[in-house]
Amino acid sequence: MGNEMIPDIVVGRLPLYLRTLQLMSAEGRQVTSSQELGERLGISAAQIRKDLSQFGEFGKQGTGYHIDYLANQIKKILHLNKSWDVVVVGAGDVGHALSRYQGFSNRGFTVSMVFDNDPAKIGQKVGGFIVESIAELPELVEKAQIKVAMLAVPAAQAQQVTDMLVKAGVKAILNYAPINLLVPQDVKVQYIDPVLHLQRMSYYLE
Amino acid sequence: MGNEMIPDIVVGRLPLYLRTLQLMSAEGRQVTSSQELGERLGISAAQIRKDLSQFGEFGKQGTGYHIDYLANQIKKILHLNKSWDVVVVGAGDVGHALSRYQGFSNRGFTVSMVFDNDPAKIGQKVGGFIVESIAELPELVEKAQIKVAMLAVPAAQAQQVTDMLVKAGVKAILNYAPINLLVPQDVKVQYIDPVLHLQRMSYYLE
Repeated sequence: MGNEMIPDIVVGRLPLYLRTLQLMSAEGRQVTSSQELGERLGISAAQIRKDLSQFGEFGKQGTGYHIDYLANQIKKILHLNKSWDVVVVGAGDVGHALSRYQGFSNRGFTVSMVFDNDPAKIGQKVGGFIVESIAELPELVEKAQIKVAMLAVPAAQAQQVTDMLVKAGVKAILNYAPINLLVPQDVKVQYIDPVLHLQRMSYYLE
Repeated sequence: MGNEMIPDIVVGRLPLYLRTLQLMSAEGRQVTSSQELGERLGISAAQIRKDLSQFGEFGKQGTGYHIDYLANQIKKILHLNKSWDVVVVGAGDVGHALSRYQGFSNRGFTVSMVFDNDPAKIGQKVGGFIVESIAELPELVEKAQIKVAMLAVPAAQAQQVTDMLVKAGVKAILNYAPINLLVPQDVKVQYIDPVLHLQRMSYYLE
């Protein structure tokens, strides 16, 4: 499919299309159009058609897209036709919320372990998981061949934990610590820092 | 300054520059360069110089940027030379984590109220706040002239709560519900959905 040549920004819009298609499906809908998708997402219909055309032919001129079919195709493209095990590192407020969040499992991900370095937290139950010591992380993650991690540790520890995760074979890290991470080229990092989003909006205030 | 003409994608990088400058300042550093900023952020030095030049002249050829000066200038551009009061709507796990998070106040935002519609939560303490009834939201938000909200309610209720917030005068919404919101043109929305980030990375796995 020449995946290497598709810009990451296009890849990044596919989950948005998928989420909207799945909502439509839950509403009992069967067919949609690039126009309707675009209106729901604030993206132009032409952009959506162009993005999808990079991966194949999913709709017919005049009849639009079959919602479940297109959703399944996007799931395949994003490798979501299986469920990925995910570890959560850091059992503070964010790690707690992540380990209890019900919205992962029906969208391709399953939290399978939670780690912390705080003796007061290790062995305690968080969101149905017994918190494991971070000292066990390298062995447990490597043995379970886990490729995905969510990082919810303080900024000062984030790079060190990242190095551990990478060494254990993790290839995708969702980082909640407000700091940029250095990783090898074959490891992907995505960032969630609510303050960055708030600051982007405060520019427009007043 | 012709702010209207600066692309939102450029505005969106300023908080990233600010965060990195503040980290450098905390490390005791005084001067940096677009090269160094670029290496820390994975953005080209030319892009950073071009972005900053849209807002003014902040560095001198050969001597680089004074870290605290540039940080302060960016704070002014982003209207962060004051602290913005923020309401949290939804006192579940995410709202709980947001209301307890210590990283807002030194970056321009202060959580000032927490709302929920669950009688079991209203009146309870969450992160130092007494949870208020959502029925009180319109009056309390309008009276306090609050412009910023973080939305952590279920997807099914997100649009309805958004309409309340907009009516009460809120102009910036950080939405944690996994659904796109419809708002008037003068209201900004940013989205946080961890699954979208995970799905963007799973494309590259295997």
